[in-house]
Amino acid sequence: MAEVLDELLCSSGQGSTTAVASTPEACVDLGRAQRCGFPEVVYGSGKTPQAVVGVFDALLAAGQSCLATRVDEDQAAAVRDRFPEVIFNETARTLRISSEKQKPEGLVAVVSAGTSDLPVAEEAVETIRWMNCDVNLIVDIGVAGPQRLLSRVEQLRKADSLVVVAGMEGALPSVVAGHVSTPVFAVPTSVGYGANFGGVSALLSMLNSCASNVAVVNIDAGFKAAYLAGMVARAAATVPADS
Amino acid sequence: MAEVLDELLCSSGQGSTTAVASTPEACVDLGRAQRCGFPEVVYGSGKTPQAVVGVFDALLAAGQSCLATRVDEDQAAAVRDRFPEVIFNETARTLRISSEKQKPEGLVAVVSAGTSDLPVAEEAVETIRWMNCDVNLIVDIGVAGPQRLLSRVEQLRKADSLVVVAGMEGALPSVVAGHVSTPVFAVPTSVGYGANFGGVSALLSMLNSCASNVAVVNIDAGFKAAYLAGMVARAAATVPADS
Amino acid sequence: MAEVLDELLCSSGQGSTTAVASTPEACVDLGRAQRCGFPEVVYGSGKTPQAVVGVFDALLAAGQSCLATRVDEDQAAAVRDRFPEVIFNETARTLRISSEKQKPEGLVAVVSAGTSDLPVAEEAVETIRWMNCDVNLIVDIGVAGPQRLLSRVEQLRKADSLVVVAGMEGALPSVVAGHVSTPVFAVPTSVGYGANFGGVSALLSMLNSCASNVAVVNIDAGFKAAYLAGMVARAAATVPADS
Amino acid sequence: MAEVLDELLCSSGQGSTTAVASTPEACVDLGRAQRCGFPEVVYGSGKTPQAVVGVFDALLAAGQSCLATRVDEDQAAAVRDRFPEVIFNETARTLRISSEKQKPEGLVAVVSAGTSDLPVAEEAVETIRWMNCDVNLIVDIGVAGPQRLLSRVEQLRKADSLVVVAGMEGALPSVVAGHVSTPVFAVPTSVGYGANFGGVSALLSMLNSCASNVAVVNIDAGFKAAYLAGMVARAAATVPADS
Amino acid sequence: MAEVLDELLCSSGQGSTTAVASTPEACVDLGRAQRCGFPEVVYGSGKTPQAVVGVFDALLAAGQSCLATRVDEDQAAAVRDRFPEVIFNETARTLRISSEKQKPEGLVAVVSAGTSDLPVAEEAVETIRWMNCDVNLIVDIGVAGPQRLLSRVEQLRKADSLVVVAGMEGALPSVVAGHVSTPVFAVPTSVGYGANFGGVSALLSMLNSCASNVAVVNIDAGFKAAYLAGMVARAAATVPADS
Amino acid sequence: MAEVLDELLCSSGQGSTTAVASTPEACVDLGRAQRCGFPEVVYGSGKTPQAVVGVFDALLAAGQSCLATRVDEDQAAAVRDRFPEVIFNETARTLRISSEKQKPEGLVAVVSAGTSDLPVAEEAVETIRWMNCDVNLIVDIGVAGPQRLLSRVEQLRKADSLVVVAGMEGALPSVVAGHVSTPVFAVPTSVGYGANFGGVSALLSMLNSCASNVAVVNIDAGFKAAYLAGMVARAAATVPADS
Amino acid sequence: MAEVLDELLCSSGQGSTTAVASTPEACVDLGRAQRCGFPEVVYGSGKTPQAVVGVFDALLAAGQSCLATRVDEDQAAAVRDRFPEVIFNETARTLRISSEKQKPEGLVAVVSAGTSDLPVAEEAVETIRWMNCDVNLIVDIGVAGPQRLLSRVEQLRKADSLVVVAGMEGALPSVVAGHVSTPVFAVPTSVGYGANFGGVSALLSMLNSCASNVAVVNIDAGFKAAYLAGMVARAAATVPADS
Amino acid sequence: MAEVLDELLCSSGQGSTTAVASTPEACVDLGRAQRCGFPEVVYGSGKTPQAVVGVFDALLAAGQSCLATRVDEDQAAAVRDRFPEVIFNETARTLRISSEKQKPEGLVAVVSAGTSDLPVAEEAVETIRWMNCDVNLIVDIGVAGPQRLLSRVEQLRKADSLVVVAGMEGALPSVVAGHVSTPVFAVPTSVGYGANFGGVSALLSMLNSCASNVAVVNIDAGFKAAYLAGMVARAAATVPADS
Repeated sequence: MAEVLDELLCSSGQGSTTAVASTPEACVDLGRAQRCGFPEVVYGSGKTPQAVVGVFDALLAAGQSCLATRVDEDQAAAVRDRFPEVIFNETARTLRISSEKQKPEGLVAVVSAGTSDLPVAEEAVETIRWMNCDVNLIVDIGVAGPQRLLSRVEQLRKADSLVVVAGMEGALPSVVAGHVSTPVFAVPTSVGYGANFGGVSALLSMLNSCASNVAVVNIDAGFKAAYLAGMVARAAATVPADS
Repeated sequence: MAEVLDELLCSSGQGSTTAVASTPEACVDLGRAQRCGFPEVVYGSGKTPQAVVGVFDALLAAGQSCLATRVDEDQAAAVRDRFPEVIFNETARTLRISSEKQKPEGLVAVVSAGTSDLPVAEEAVETIRWMNCDVNLIVDIGVAGPQRLLSRVEQLRKADSLVVVAGMEGALPSVVAGHVSTPVFAVPTSVGYGANFGGVSALLSMLNSCASNVAVVNIDAGFKAAYLAGMVARAAATVPADS
Repeated sequence: MAEVLDELLCSSGQGSTTAVASTPEACVDLGRAQRCGFPEVVYGSGKTPQAVVGVFDALLAAGQSCLATRVDEDQAAAVRDRFPEVIFNETARTLRISSEKQKPEGLVAVVSAGTSDLPVAEEAVETIRWMNCDVNLIVDIGVAGPQRLLSRVEQLRKADSLVVVAGMEGALPSVVAGHVSTPVFAVPTSVGYGANFGGVSALLSMLNSCASNVAVVNIDAGFKAAYLAGMVARAAATVPADS
Repeated sequence: MAEVLDELLCSSGQGSTTAVASTPEACVDLGRAQRCGFPEVVYGSGKTPQAVVGVFDALLAAGQSCLATRVDEDQAAAVRDRFPEVIFNETARTLRISSEKQKPEGLVAVVSAGTSDLPVAEEAVETIRWMNCDVNLIVDIGVAGPQRLLSRVEQLRKADSLVVVAGMEGALPSVVAGHVSTPVFAVPTSVGYGANFGGVSALLSMLNSCASNVAVVNIDAGFKAAYLAGMVARAAATVPADS
Repeated sequence: MAEVLDELLCSSGQGSTTAVASTPEACVDLGRAQRCGFPEVVYGSGKTPQAVVGVFDALLAAGQSCLATRVDEDQAAAVRDRFPEVIFNETARTLRISSEKQKPEGLVAVVSAGTSDLPVAEEAVETIRWMNCDVNLIVDIGVAGPQRLLSRVEQLRKADSLVVVAGMEGALPSVVAGHVSTPVFAVPTSVGYGANFGGVSALLSMLNSCASNVAVVNIDAGFKAAYLAGMVARAAATVPADS
Repeated sequence: MAEVLDELLCSSGQGSTTAVASTPEACVDLGRAQRCGFPEVVYGSGKTPQAVVGVFDALLAAGQSCLATRVDEDQAAAVRDRFPEVIFNETARTLRISSEKQKPEGLVAVVSAGTSDLPVAEEAVETIRWMNCDVNLIVDIGVAGPQRLLSRVEQLRKADSLVVVAGMEGALPSVVAGHVSTPVFAVPTSVGYGANFGGVSALLSMLNSCASNVAVVNIDAGFKAAYLAGMVARAAATVPADS
Repeated sequence: MAEVLDELLCSSGQGSTTAVASTPEACVDLGRAQRCGFPEVVYGSGKTPQAVVGVFDALLAAGQSCLATRVDEDQAAAVRDRFPEVIFNETARTLRISSEKQKPEGLVAVVSAGTSDLPVAEEAVETIRWMNCDVNLIVDIGVAGPQRLLSRVEQLRKADSLVVVAGMEGALPSVVAGHVSTPVFAVPTSVGYGANFGGVSALLSMLNSCASNVAVVNIDAGFKAAYLAGMVARAAATVPADS
Repeated sequence: MAEVLDELLCSSGQGSTTAVASTPEACVDLGRAQRCGFPEVVYGSGKTPQAVVGVFDALLAAGQSCLATRVDEDQAAAVRDRFPEVIFNETARTLRISSEKQKPEGLVAVVSAGTSDLPVAEEAVETIRWMNCDVNLIVDIGVAGPQRLLSRVEQLRKADSLVVVAGMEGALPSVVAGHVSTPVFAVPTSVGYGANFGGVSALLSMLNSCASNVAVVNIDAGFKAAYLAGMVARAAATVPADS
């Protein structure tokens, strides 16, 4: 236990797992990559463009990859001015700079029914790329068009884990999960009208899924589902320490 | 308009569409069969066994078919004592005596995912039989077992209308509706636990169905979905007046 | 079963029921008209004007009727530029081009209480016209003015099915259903204030209707109720195959 | 203002509007009849039989009428032992002893759709009798059977105020209110199943009534609606002080 | 019953209780004043200025008083252009033209806690004036400032009925009702923040009031509470027919 | 910070703030009295009688006071067999053994409207006694009977803090808080029926209180409100360290 | 009791506890400081800039401190024009003028997880300063970063009471409360997305806290939590009258 | 795609992935183990003891492991009669017969706060054993007792994935997740009272977790969380095919 406490205590120190970098508007947790497996992520909503640039600066200086979600045009412009290599995915509203040069490990499939769920699905895609996994985006699968899902089953089975994004009645994760033997991370979206109640309808469907391999995240939380799916894919793709 | 008012006004009279029969505990609307196409139905819950027997007596005396839903053992015993020919469906909790001798017209398919939804599905089946339609009960279709639905598609397409019963995430109606070109009457059931909220999860799924041909009835309302499906099947099976 | 699977499998092929047309922004399901009885419908919300024009192009090239719902002014202008014959219903927010030259079959009555429910009622009317049924729109029936409903009962009884649109307390479908022997497809609207909760009050009323012949669709879903009512009216108006 | 304060302050004294009587389990507010127009009422739920008897003793000693609501068999037996003249309405679950010898003033109509709402309707009836108003109970009016309401309109119009009791979709108050020019006090009941949510469906319908003359009380609160309706009826039936 | 039906049937005729006046955008129910005691009221929301002017024209031509609620600046300007005598209450968002020359009958007290509930309270005040009752507006009573209520009790007791408007915790109606022996019509308002849920908190408080003489209307429905209170006040102030 | 960590780390040791006592079914946190000011409390629900006895044994051996809440008859009997001096409050469903011999410090007033809220109020009373504060229980204050509250205001002002318990509309805390200048800890109770939703109505009222000095705890959580009120009363009654 | 009533009655008089000052738009309760311990506070939302200035004028003339919450830019500018010494906290949206020259008494810690909860936390800070208590704002404590809380425990333990502000899952108050022996006033914020439902998620977490010393206020109600915490801190810091 | 369809089509055949075994009350999906990685599981609720025995018979005959959840005493007795080696976990309400002789692979930690969540935690433990993973059950971690979690951090970090079970405010998953770099599957339980709403409070907390590595399953769904965690642990413990 000494090790744990030591780590927790030296949080203001210079130890590798607890290193921090102070920017004018934020204190970047540089040790996070080592402690949790992945660097800190910027939740853009409500931050100034300068704040986002500042965190990217600090992360890159430490040789870490950068991801910002829910960014707006101004934040994107400011980051692009400073780091022309940044990838701004306008649909996903993400900014990403991958420092990794290694070959991606693990494969995640991101599935959604249609174009209206695309922003959430793209946020998941960007997250998975930032985690240095391979990603397979499949967007033309709808519950009401059964033939489309069947033609994709082989692809789905190749993935180490899945992110399934759905609004309205949120049935897609259950239907997909019946075809695979890997965890399915379901993301309800706020897409729909009337009695969908901003995503509650899809959320309840997913929580009540009759498939055993469906876990759920918050409404529109493409990043979180992808983060979990990426963790699983990387664990599956890595040779265990004791083998 | 005279005709309408005349009919409405003579409700205590002896006109054919407004005939009534007084029993000790109820006033049976014998004209209903002619006005609405089908006789009055007994909602058993909370009635005495004698009350149920009384209504059946009056309906049979008028040559009409009888149906009682949500009946208990005592009601069933009392009716069976008086009318040994009654069909008591214990799963459906229904009592039925069909007076019709005519060949059934129209075909309704009643679909449910598993055994726990069976009481609601059986209530639908009994209702459709009482309406003198043919019925096809399919209970082994589950969203998570995709092959089972595929093997039944041909059967489903033969029906003039469908009743689809589902609890938990309530995805079955959407999935089934994608295979047929007839109205699907969806019944959410209270089966499930936790965040199913007594059927609300399935109800919301069905209301938000991405399929255009799904209409919804109240939670556990097998009778109502079947009544609507039977109406449609009979209309489809009948030669139009002007053809 | 071979037939079903064959159909499902050839979805990317040129078979009649599975034919598709690729437009720059969408893949139009041309086989849908044959499979489901009616062509694909465009849900305008969130699409570019060009995308709507593209689908209409593909459908008309295949000799099929076109319907777009929830369209805005820009989409309407773009479609009108390309197809001057299009009918833009501003109240309903729909675009429609009917290819059918045949006499309409089946009659649907669309009923609403007042002028505030009119957009939903008009969306239903346009949908029914696109399905080539006759439609009878009745908008001056209110629960609190009983004489108005009575004067319309004869008209209501002539329809093969009904769409009843209501906000606030949503009582109209129950009251109308007591006068007819056909299915009533009830549409709760978000019209009202305070404890109507965006249509939930009307939705619950309709689900709990004491009338047996009331089925419910999503809040403001005029299209869906009309689609179901049109299906029923056409089935009722068609001579059965085996008669 | 001296008068008001004087009254409020002497609450433990012997003044006429604030007189109290101590029983072993309760302190009876004997001044209430003079202050509020009607004596204190016993809410039986959770009280001992002796407590109910004690309050009745005190009220009768002061020459006041007695009413207890939501009583059980034991409470009823205890009161009947002591006061054989008590009226125990088993359906309403009320106990009542009227001390008044005066001719009733004012007329309230109590309306409900069917037999399942009867306990709430009967509680209203007993309350109105205790207030020494005339009451007209009409239980065979249902929204789905329009002719039944029409035949009762003349009766409804004779009342000085109405109590309308309804479960399920709760549409009856709106429909009744369209026929009268007096206040309608609507009572939603917990009768129904599925999406009625223990009376919430009926409650919301009544709150959203499109009729201007509908006020609402709590679910199953037959007493409260009747108390309000009785107040109105008595005020309407009394010659104003200054006329 | 003939009378009732006759009245209902002649709705398109020239009978006194069913007279109508057609305007370009509406069909004004001129018989309503005689049938229901008060003329038709215009719910301004969503209507064109011309439509409001049209109804006022028709009502005034028939010698009836006019009231429009939830009007905007444009509607107000249009009506004022045509009828300079109109009273536009900007807080209440109402337009009113009183044709009555008779002395007001009956007294209603309108009570609210503070300035934020004033629009709803003022809508109630205007409605009561239109009904030709006297009104007493009391706006400085708050639950948390107990002395303010006490100083107003005498005033409250003089009213024939009360309208009590409250947001936030909605406790005012219960507190006021304990001081009077007349019906209290409680209006929950959407004023507040956080867990007031747009008025639901106040609505539930009022429905659960421990006072027997509190009835509730929809959130922000100042008009409806006032209409009911005005009905009661006029009934109380009128000499009964048989006295 | 060393001190904090040291304390946290030695949790399995024999240090004074982290001492534990192992019983067959529980591990008693004896250091809690020193760390948090008060000993551990037993939540009886679902525990065996022996488990409750065991914890009391350990606490008394360490010279600490004992409190168990939500106990049943069997638990009470078992504890009384072992410790005849235990105080079993049947209404409160609590067991208490006070080890303290010191004079109580601080005064808490516990207020409730009527007898049905008494179990929650009594749980609060027992908790305050166990904390060795004085307590003043006032149960005859109701919102609808304004004179009763006024006669108690002087008493309420003497308390260092208040617990106010209320069901139904939950207005009492707001009304009481207007009379005092100390914190009011409000406890909503599940008492009521219909739209009280098991205490939600009272909970929302209290959260939306217009009084600044009202804080809220969970429904029926008499213990928690009393624990907070007792903390405040003791702090108020204690001479500050630096004075 | 004479004293209480006397005070309540003289509310329009010039007595010290009931003094008022009339401004054009408001009646300022100058006696409140003496009755309740602190002067009246201005809730800025919906008031004119002049109204805010008017109340500040009246309070300062009486030598009392001023606080306005939820103010906008215009209100701030107007007050600053008149009173250049005012402190406008833009994040908190408060205006404050402290008249007190005495040394602050009592210490409150205000804790929040991150920058998005800062407006609510700052409102709490300003309130505590206005109450003349010391305040310690700690904003970098997050549930998911356990080391950050540990490093602050010693600071937290020095406070007389705590305000803990949290959105999303609202877990921070429970976690903090486990480290202190003083009351924790928890403020749920509306910060978050999806299933946080505008703060309901955090609100429910806090109400269900397993820690005994957590009380809850309305969503975003930083002022109210601070007011309660300030009351406690001052009581704790003051020598009791009888010591 | 031929392979997929072939597999789906031969569902009634004897192919390895689609083999079935008919028992009197169920059709056991023997191919599931090969298709999905694990055999079919029996959800005991509502099944006859014979039905459970029948499925176990079929699975064991095919050399597969057996698991039944939510079983009652009668089901347990019947299975034990037939298979004395069955492990009946009374707390978990599970029956388990492991056929596997292989060394377990992968390690899952199951964490809960206290004894009341134990049934759900134990269901998770049994599920993980049935999946032939190692499991580490940690039940003495509570949010309010911070030292207990710290002492377990090293243990938690050794697991390949976690199941965290919590009722009341549901904060435990967020707190635990901050210490590990593996997926956390959070199970809200229905344990608590008042505003926990049968687990909704904990469910919302978990969905809104500020930790990126928390996924959620249905209320009380210990089996489902464990199934997902087991999948992850096995994937992590297995050498990838291509390494």
